Amino acid sequence: MRTKARNKVERIPKRGHYDAPTIHGILDSACIAHVSFADAGGQPFVIPMLYAREGECLYLHGSIASRLMKTVGSGIAACACVTLVDGLVLARSHFHHSMNYRSVVVFGTAEPVTDASEKAAILARFVDAILPGRAAEARAADRNELKATSLLRFHIEQASAKIRSGGPKDDPADATLPIWSGVVPIAQRHAEPIAAEDATPGVPVPASVLRLLD
Amino acid sequence: MRTKARNKVERIPKRGHYDAPTIHGILDSACIAHVSFADAGGQPFVIPMLYAREGECLYLHGSIASRLMKTVGSGIAACACVTLVDGLVLARSHFHHSMNYRSVVVFGTAEPVTDASEKAAILARFVDAILPGRAAEARAADRNELKATSLLRFHIEQASAKIRSGGPKDDPADATLPIWSGVVPIAQRHAEPIAAEDATPGVPVPASVLRLLD
Repeated sequence: MRTKARNKVERIPKRGHYDAPTIHGILDSACIAHVSFADAGGQPFVIPMLYAREGECLYLHGSIASRLMKTVGSGIAACACVTLVDGLVLARSHFHHSMNYRSVVVFGTAEPVTDASEKAAILARFVDAILPGRAAEARAADRNELKATSLLRFHIEQASAKIRSGGPKDDPADATLPIWSGVVPIAQRHAEPIAAEDATPGVPVPASVLRLLD
Repeated sequence: MRTKARNKVERIPKRGHYDAPTIHGILDSACIAHVSFADAGGQPFVIPMLYAREGECLYLHGSIASRLMKTVGSGIAACACVTLVDGLVLARSHFHHSMNYRSVVVFGTAEPVTDASEKAAILARFVDAILPGRAAEARAADRNELKATSLLRFHIEQASAKIRSGGPKDDPADATLPIWSGVVPIAQRHAEPIAAEDATPGVPVPASVLRLLD
């Protein structure tokens, strides 16, 4: 299976996309990737991680003590997947039930980023990946915090997107069954912000959060 | 790294949970898992898949032509991760920004389920994993659909949950900074259902969907 086609969408090829705007658009709409690697014995691991994208790189961060950061940072083959769920697809038959989704799978290898000023700039991007505009509102990492943070640059060597959208595709033979069919859209909803127990008194909810609630 | 402790939460151990009610509760609150395996060359793959849980098994399904189903179904070491995102954690410092989440990582191996009546019953569970109560409203799989579907029983051999909840943990030295800190909760919202273009006329929105919108 280790071929140049490791990123080829084999099942339902019409759902496959390989262009950068589609792939980057999905990667930039989420902030958690499922990162996968295998140990020398072939045991796979998959772990959810925050990420930030820049060009053809994904940045991953963690504690300097993290085994994932050490293992993936050694440059072994890695894979990451980002999935956005858009809806429940309810068909007349069990068989045609599905989900609407957008997902990206990327293959590549990672290396540590060690330069302190580069690390600080990229860590700010993680904050904006969680919430656009937040980095400028908060205190940037200091020297000790940069030392305690391991940062990896994951080079995307191959990528593919897979998208399902639209309604169910029922069998013509089921057309007259008295069973409702359609889609229930799903979206992430942000609820009212909850100030921290130790919040600084008199500080209003910031612009980054207010934009979420519009 | 292939040890009995492959499921041990090493970073921030207080976030780790190993009891069945916690693990099952998270697995039963989602329907998409990120399933990971490696090929003989050590290349990892991770793919989003629908799943249904029963006891200490996860069921995975796909086309009989799927390379993932064939590869994972051969019984190689596999790993799957389910992640639910609960909120944005906004601290005064970049360093303490985080997400609230609940995730489960499971390790094990899979085998095909081939008995037709067992397959039909489990495929109904997938429909209810997408939307509780939906299986009873729709047409069950027929013999040809069962033949076209590959079903895997993934035996959970080891599992761990990781949970972060609550507010940001800022440094005491940042306590007086005039920066808002707190949590923005995130939840999945179901929007108004959209009937299929070819929907059977006169069929009302079913109880399973109405329950979502309450």
